[in-house]
Amino acid sequence: MPAYRVRGHIWIDRQGGGPFLGPGRIALLQKIDELGSIRAAAKALNMSYRRAWRHVEALNREAPSPLIITSIGGKGGGGATLTPAGYAVLEIFARLEKSFQRFLEEKTKDIQEELSHIHP
Amino acid sequence: MPAYRVRGHIWIDRQGGGPFLGPGRIALLQKIDELGSIRAAAKALNMSYRRAWRHVEALNREAPSPLIITSIGGKGGGGATLTPAGYAVLEIFARLEKSFQRFLEEKTKDIQEELSHIHP
Repeated sequence: MPAYRVRGHIWIDRQGGGPFLGPGRIALLQKIDELGSIRAAAKALNMSYRRAWRHVEALNREAPSPLIITSIGGKGGGGATLTPAGYAVLEIFARLEKSFQRFLEEKTKDIQEELSHIHP
Repeated sequence: MPAYRVRGHIWIDRQGGGPFLGPGRIALLQKIDELGSIRAAAKALNMSYRRAWRHVEALNREAPSPLIITSIGGKGGGGATLTPAGYAVLEIFARLEKSFQRFLEEKTKDIQEELSHIHP
């Protein structure tokens, strides 16, 4: 019998609103933390600066409290850092992803077992 | 605080292969069962007959045993019915979806709780 695998995607919406947090925005938050700059993070992710800025503004507006602090000007054009809320959100999403991976592994075992009992 | 909701998609792949079963093919199986014809099912789902046929062939080839039996010819152009394996697969997927909905509801509660404790 061929082997099967349960797969999936997961993200967080605002209730009655659009998407709040998924793998794309999480990658942006991580890159901003790593590189200390929205411009550098956007470049590293092959995203336009304008698009990265829109995500940052939306994240700050849609989160319970702002996730990214930006400082303007100076040499190199200002920086960006995560707030404690920003780090908390990274942790919350990582835990959610881990839990989802466990769910998928468990269901893969169930499905494999169930499909192996199928007869014509 | 705004309300958040965990959402997601789930499907079954063949290990090391492409997708085997997701909401689209499940809808096709259900319509074939309901209408007794691949042509009628395709029409009801706004899908080309050619495309529906390809899904049926792939499902029969990729499942542990065939899910759909077709009879050719006669008035009305032959019919299609699900095999016991076809019904079993519908049940297995329905159970998987139900379990995933429970997972999403549970995680929505967790996330809502966790995000409410975030401070600036």
